[in-house]
Amino acid sequence: MKDIQNSPDQRGIEIQQVGVKDFHLPVLIATQSGSFQQVLGRITASASLPREFKGTHMSRFIEILAEWSQKPISGREIKLVLKEICSRLAAPAAEIALAFRYFLPVTAPVSKIPSPLDYSCEFHGRLTNTGQAPAYDYQMGVEIPVISLCPCSKEISDYGAHNQRAMIRAWIRCRPGRYLWLEELIGLLQEQGSSRVYPLLKREDEKFVTEEAYLRPKFVEDILRDCVLVLRGEERITWFRVEVESFESIHNHNAFARHEEGKK
Amino acid sequence: MKDIQNSPDQRGIEIQQVGVKDFHLPVLIATQSGSFQQVLGRITASASLPREFKGTHMSRFIEILAEWSQKPISGREIKLVLKEICSRLAAPAAEIALAFRYFLPVTAPVSKIPSPLDYSCEFHGRLTNTGQAPAYDYQMGVEIPVISLCPCSKEISDYGAHNQRAMIRAWIRCRPGRYLWLEELIGLLQEQGSSRVYPLLKREDEKFVTEEAYLRPKFVEDILRDCVLVLRGEERITWFRVEVESFESIHNHNAFARHEEGKK
Amino acid sequence: MKDIQNSPDQRGIEIQQVGVKDFHLPVLIATQSGSFQQVLGRITASASLPREFKGTHMSRFIEILAEWSQKPISGREIKLVLKEICSRLAAPAAEIALAFRYFLPVTAPVSKIPSPLDYSCEFHGRLTNTGQAPAYDYQMGVEIPVISLCPCSKEISDYGAHNQRAMIRAWIRCRPGRYLWLEELIGLLQEQGSSRVYPLLKREDEKFVTEEAYLRPKFVEDILRDCVLVLRGEERITWFRVEVESFESIHNHNAFARHEEGKK
Amino acid sequence: MKDIQNSPDQRGIEIQQVGVKDFHLPVLIATQSGSFQQVLGRITASASLPREFKGTHMSRFIEILAEWSQKPISGREIKLVLKEICSRLAAPAAEIALAFRYFLPVTAPVSKIPSPLDYSCEFHGRLTNTGQAPAYDYQMGVEIPVISLCPCSKEISDYGAHNQRAMIRAWIRCRPGRYLWLEELIGLLQEQGSSRVYPLLKREDEKFVTEEAYLRPKFVEDILRDCVLVLRGEERITWFRVEVESFESIHNHNAFARHEEGKK
Repeated sequence: MKDIQNSPDQRGIEIQQVGVKDFHLPVLIATQSGSFQQVLGRITASASLPREFKGTHMSRFIEILAEWSQKPISGREIKLVLKEICSRLAAPAAEIALAFRYFLPVTAPVSKIPSPLDYSCEFHGRLTNTGQAPAYDYQMGVEIPVISLCPCSKEISDYGAHNQRAMIRAWIRCRPGRYLWLEELIGLLQEQGSSRVYPLLKREDEKFVTEEAYLRPKFVEDILRDCVLVLRGEERITWFRVEVESFESIHNHNAFARHEEGKK
Repeated sequence: MKDIQNSPDQRGIEIQQVGVKDFHLPVLIATQSGSFQQVLGRITASASLPREFKGTHMSRFIEILAEWSQKPISGREIKLVLKEICSRLAAPAAEIALAFRYFLPVTAPVSKIPSPLDYSCEFHGRLTNTGQAPAYDYQMGVEIPVISLCPCSKEISDYGAHNQRAMIRAWIRCRPGRYLWLEELIGLLQEQGSSRVYPLLKREDEKFVTEEAYLRPKFVEDILRDCVLVLRGEERITWFRVEVESFESIHNHNAFARHEEGKK
Repeated sequence: MKDIQNSPDQRGIEIQQVGVKDFHLPVLIATQSGSFQQVLGRITASASLPREFKGTHMSRFIEILAEWSQKPISGREIKLVLKEICSRLAAPAAEIALAFRYFLPVTAPVSKIPSPLDYSCEFHGRLTNTGQAPAYDYQMGVEIPVISLCPCSKEISDYGAHNQRAMIRAWIRCRPGRYLWLEELIGLLQEQGSSRVYPLLKREDEKFVTEEAYLRPKFVEDILRDCVLVLRGEERITWFRVEVESFESIHNHNAFARHEEGKK
Repeated sequence: MKDIQNSPDQRGIEIQQVGVKDFHLPVLIATQSGSFQQVLGRITASASLPREFKGTHMSRFIEILAEWSQKPISGREIKLVLKEICSRLAAPAAEIALAFRYFLPVTAPVSKIPSPLDYSCEFHGRLTNTGQAPAYDYQMGVEIPVISLCPCSKEISDYGAHNQRAMIRAWIRCRPGRYLWLEELIGLLQEQGSSRVYPLLKREDEKFVTEEAYLRPKFVEDILRDCVLVLRGEERITWFRVEVESFESIHNHNAFARHEEGKK
């Protein structure tokens, strides 16, 4: 049976990424505690395609991903997956993005009742094998729901202040081999809103959260700047992009702030 | 060229709906003021298929919809579109759903500055031509952003109260020929939240909205009940379904309430 | 601390549904083989609210759901969850919808290589405890990707035929206590397209699937009718709604067919 | 009334982007023919925020956008909007993204019947006013539905070939002042699939499209490379990114290819 993908191509174009997109698979995520958490992964995986070849072999991505779905994954394993893609597809470069909802137990502030909060997360890796030493670029992304309470609204109003759910989204790069755990990055950032959010709040907790938010009014600009300070302060992080989006209760559109920064 | 759709089918099954889904088209919506507003329509249109025929003729839906997109549409025209579908497809019944964002000018409460607010709306019609007189069922749906401010949070907290954007979604049926305008239905319902939302608010407006919401705390249950009272009170309405969804600022999930009711 | 939710309400309106929406939680789904599969659940849960009370207690939904997330769930357990909601919220009725991606191993048709295919599924239950015996209504929904190949295109063309991914979506009700497993319902329906889809296909499999689809051309109407025959034939099923949506390769919109039917 | 936004900030962080997101507004798009088309715009607009200030003035974005929504917009006007944002917000830089569905008439290949096809488009501009001459970066993006027919499937199968809807997504930058019209960019790229898609096809057209696709089998890699050749060949373009995503009929996931390239 003819292998059309392997047939030569005359256009002389090396393609940077060819692969599969929005492939769903249960995946194991390595946890900080040394165990793992099973999540629903949405995966995009690709390889570069040398100019000589007409097409890539898409089924190999599925084979590789299905095998890896049995083992706990972190930034380290993402690199191994990429190595395997490069090797089995004879590709000079490969890229993968793994998006998933990750759950961490949070504790209600007064009643101390625990409940599981979901955070949208992403692992993103790129391995380039051209010429000299292979280059590995790895980013980790998290999305953290918080409360934002408007300082202007509080200041100008005789009582109350508009507030709403807001999302802190951060992507980071780390020094080689010195990755943060999801738990660490989430821990750094989820204190930066006016208050935190919880799946389960009893009345005494709701009082606490309401008052805490009122005492810590923050614009999206404030939340963003506080995130920037925290991300600058973590010495393992070499680059970050952070965005805060606030689903304004007084509008039908959102407010946002975004910032990106590399460190020397 | 053989007309496969017209070939006979042996399975003996009359299909209730066959047609096109998620077809996008600019459409003109008749306004209460006697003019029209051009919107981006997302359309699902279908006809029933008698047991004798293998398939429907999908291209005729597009022809009919493209022609109608030139004329201002309201509940009355939806019926004419359905008549035309029944006639040109030789179908005993037809159904259409037209979803769109509709813009109405709103006026900031203190500065009186106007700005255009978007409401997601839907016209839904079904015409059945079986046996005796044709039956026309018409529903209109609107989605209205408002603020909800939690009465419990206000009561138990020493200061502040959590609040957030909430959506009132209502679908109504009316007495034959006595339709409400979108403007009327929106007008009835948008006063039922803790306060209204606006695209454009100056500081004096923000103060007003913040304080109004604080003075009118409402659970989703309260907003829903107030909507029910208003919808019961409008004598042209014979049936309604109403839902309130509140994007809770203190959680990563939403609160909602829903109710459906016919009148004698 | 005052319990505002428990305070009396004067509007005299019993609300049909009040609760939480789009709450995410890892959940265990009971499998046909007697084991279970962990999935990412998206949950909407509600209770009716008697006219006397101002509000429901939202945190109890989270408590109940978090507890149940530890035990394998099927149609039977959904009823127990609803009983618990009614009891702990003193509500005459409760409703729950649990949506999730479910994975089943499929075997490539020629190479026999297995790979995991994802199906979007939903459990939906409603328990009503008014007056006499409690009434339990339970629906199960599945979404099954298949190939549809157009019989008209095949007939009129000298070579080839347009085809595309299509989705079969079915919801069923069963005789009391005689539920189908997800595996059974999926098994009945996934043979009804022009051919099946697979995550992993080697070349010999791709040849098989391509040719099978070409030999079994089906309109959405055909797939729907074949699904209707199969659903009518399964005696445990008392009601069904089935929809086929085909992401037409030759258009930027979709074709669909839908049918609903109760049995005596 | 105190202007909290104008109060000084001590953290010393200049924020790159602060503004409004997902604001909906009817907008006029300048057409190649010298007229304009009204579309539904989804807008994100932001300004940079100097380190001295605590917050930006969000309502001014809405004022500026509402005014500009009355005038036909192209790449040139985007720059003027950005100038106005910089000026009215006293900001050194501003950014805007305007996404919308744009309709162009397409003509069925044999019957010559016209119908309106929708293309998702985006204008994206960034103006930086720091130090010397202001820098204006402008990108235009289009999404074009086409058919992809698999060369491997055709080659190895005795009859038929799997095919599906695919999306070509392209973003371009142009030489200063030498912008392409949406109509031009769409015209260049929509010929690069196995065949084009149309809202309205009569049987003779469907035969044409089916056979054309069968005679022009293309992997996502092929479509991408042909797009690259065309984009390289248009001398007004100085940079492009192009992606092809194919909603594989034989899988429940997609295939894609992506490439980005600057020209000297």
